Amino acid sequence: MPSKPGLKNSGRRLFLAGAISTVTGCRSKGRELATSDAGFETTEPMEPAAGVGAGRRRYGDRSVFEKSERSFRASKTPGTGSSRTPLQDTYGIITPSSLHFERHHAGVPSIDPEKHELLIHGLVSRPLFFRMDDLKRFPSVSRVHFIECAGNGGREHEGRPGPDPQKSHGLVSCSEWSGVLLSVLLHEVGLRSDARWLVAEGADACRLARSIPIEKALDDIVVAYGQNGEPLRPEQGYPLRLVVPGWEGNTNIKWLRRIHVVDRPYMTREEAPYYTDLMPDGKARMFTFVMESKSVITRPAGGQKLAGPGQHEITGLAWSGRGKIARVEVSTNEGQTWEDARLEEPVLPKAFTRFHLAWTWHGGEARLSSRCTDETGYLQPTRDALLAVRGANATDHYNGIKTWRVLTDGTVTNA
Amino acid sequence: MPSKPGLKNSGRRLFLAGAISTVTGCRSKGRELATSDAGFETTEPMEPAAGVGAGRRRYGDRSVFEKSERSFRASKTPGTGSSRTPLQDTYGIITPSSLHFERHHAGVPSIDPEKHELLIHGLVSRPLFFRMDDLKRFPSVSRVHFIECAGNGGREHEGRPGPDPQKSHGLVSCSEWSGVLLSVLLHEVGLRSDARWLVAEGADACRLARSIPIEKALDDIVVAYGQNGEPLRPEQGYPLRLVVPGWEGNTNIKWLRRIHVVDRPYMTREEAPYYTDLMPDGKARMFTFVMESKSVITRPAGGQKLAGPGQHEITGLAWSGRGKIARVEVSTNEGQTWEDARLEEPVLPKAFTRFHLAWTWHGGEARLSSRCTDETGYLQPTRDALLAVRGANATDHYNGIKTWRVLTDGTVTNA
Repeated sequence: MPSKPGLKNSGRRLFLAGAISTVTGCRSKGRELATSDAGFETTEPMEPAAGVGAGRRRYGDRSVFEKSERSFRASKTPGTGSSRTPLQDTYGIITPSSLHFERHHAGVPSIDPEKHELLIHGLVSRPLFFRMDDLKRFPSVSRVHFIECAGNGGREHEGRPGPDPQKSHGLVSCSEWSGVLLSVLLHEVGLRSDARWLVAEGADACRLARSIPIEKALDDIVVAYGQNGEPLRPEQGYPLRLVVPGWEGNTNIKWLRRIHVVDRPYMTREEAPYYTDLMPDGKARMFTFVMESKSVITRPAGGQKLAGPGQHEITGLAWSGRGKIARVEVSTNEGQTWEDARLEEPVLPKAFTRFHLAWTWHGGEARLSSRCTDETGYLQPTRDALLAVRGANATDHYNGIKTWRVLTDGTVTNA
Repeated sequence: MPSKPGLKNSGRRLFLAGAISTVTGCRSKGRELATSDAGFETTEPMEPAAGVGAGRRRYGDRSVFEKSERSFRASKTPGTGSSRTPLQDTYGIITPSSLHFERHHAGVPSIDPEKHELLIHGLVSRPLFFRMDDLKRFPSVSRVHFIECAGNGGREHEGRPGPDPQKSHGLVSCSEWSGVLLSVLLHEVGLRSDARWLVAEGADACRLARSIPIEKALDDIVVAYGQNGEPLRPEQGYPLRLVVPGWEGNTNIKWLRRIHVVDRPYMTREEAPYYTDLMPDGKARMFTFVMESKSVITRPAGGQKLAGPGQHEITGLAWSGRGKIARVEVSTNEGQTWEDARLEEPVLPKAFTRFHLAWTWHGGEARLSSRCTDETGYLQPTRDALLAVRGANATDHYNGIKTWRVLTDGTVTNA
């Protein structure tokens, strides 16, 4: 936490010396800055608006000066592919819904919520259809969770590291999700004693489907209709999706139309050739659901430039599919020494945790890295440690430490 | 918390009997619902998309099926007035930035962040200009706080109660705000020992200004540049505003351009004729900053209609300018008896707290009320109790208990 301000010439003031020269640099603009209590008349900041501004709006939008965007490459097949969140432009732990990463396998269907239904059937006492209005009669929950594509960071694994946080880590986002616990709906239909798995299916043209063990379904899965206070965005599954906290994004079935309760996994397209991890011995791990602890510094980060020596803040995001983040450490010398970062409260399970560390840059080269530990004690590994176990092929679930390089001119690049 | 699902014929199943008849009502659509494990072939929910859907977008938008809007009446003076958040359409505790309430006194200025500066001067050792890039070098914080217009609920006070949550309570919203603690910036300029108050001024054409005691400035005020993960929205003060946690909205100066450190309050236009509370004895209370504990049921609420008897969820929002919400009670019989609602975690200070209570509606008339208690022990009062103290004139800072009336046909109106 920042310290309370004291009087002039305190240690804190001296610490900020670098920044001070920058802010007083405004004097070079030619406007006089009074050094005493000069009042409103003689010391004027920038001019206020000359006239009455724009009026109220029914539904607001961001400033025309803001241009941050999701990034994506052209796709050979319309409607498929992914887009990445500009993590370097975000604040706090909520990802703006307009910038939440996307991953579509058959494009974004347009669904009328009045007509949408969820069917739960299979090994249940009473199969049921649920309309959207039905779902809103059940006890609801709101929970902040990240969703991360299993492939996030795959290019880091491959040795083609992303030049900025968006390209290196942008397939993860975090929202406040609202809806009904799946356990409540499964209770409503009545699970039969032989129920072991379920197959969740989307209403997109490819009917994307994943098998999920019943234990997870009875734990913390949310059948979500709300995102960041409003209905889900279309590209996040409007009007209904699964939120499977901490598990790879592909299991968080969007445009949810069916939950089939079954006795075994169904080996769908998305869990046989895809979303499996090929090990060095030629065997593939299946159903590697959990996204392990991971962190990335979002500022200063690749693609940015430090204005000059002096005080800066190092900030970034950490998350774990196994629970809360317990600790984030930051190194400015490529891992030779580490310092604890401050974790922004509240620290929530299976959610982004924002970390902060004040840093004085003396103008030399620096290597900025972060590593996190989750509440299970698991420490984010180095890339070398990860590849020693995983080998060259399993590029999903990459969670190695990311390092940014600060050059003497302030430019930040991938290390 | 919803209970874990059990086997068929549990008590929970019987409790949900009302809802069950509704969801099985889908059978009347003519599609057969298999009662055994019929598999994908014979039991089909709504058709999935017939073809590949829409592609990725750089900056997303909500579904074309969603029409929820801020509401406002035409204003006699362009650029002034307020717009209200449709609280009844929101989920969780984050208000979508596009639906955050507005209150402008001279419209929304268009400010280029590259040119914007904040001046802090007056009773300080070293007056300074801060550009946006300067501010981002200081240690930052992200905090979830509500902002509420002092006049929110004024029509309830006047006996013209709002027919729905938007009209009755829509001048309050809650966001994750990111920026620098004001205490850090005041330390940077160095407060002189005679500093007692500050005057914060906006860059809108009316230069809206408020006096704020230095104790609050050193406590938890945030000089905010971020809102819900992205830069502030224009109507929320882009690129810079004060967030004054728990204090009346008018003090949360938008388009912040100047903080003048002074030795006394300056009796600005907004704190002399306006934003004062006229008491029955003809004297006016000034500087009544804190927004006291308040709550409102957002569903079921006025303007809505219950689909039929059976299970429903009663949900709503509670907040207090003095800290955390400790308790929310709900009555379905106009306050004769009260039941504790579940508070959604995390419960944060000076932020919205979402509450939930499962409710079985038997089809008769009902009166739904909520009342909250904050961590100081303060209990939200009835309107009668409030008016007995405040009299007829002080319509700001109204926080009386709100009651909705459920009619036998399911229609919900103001009580």
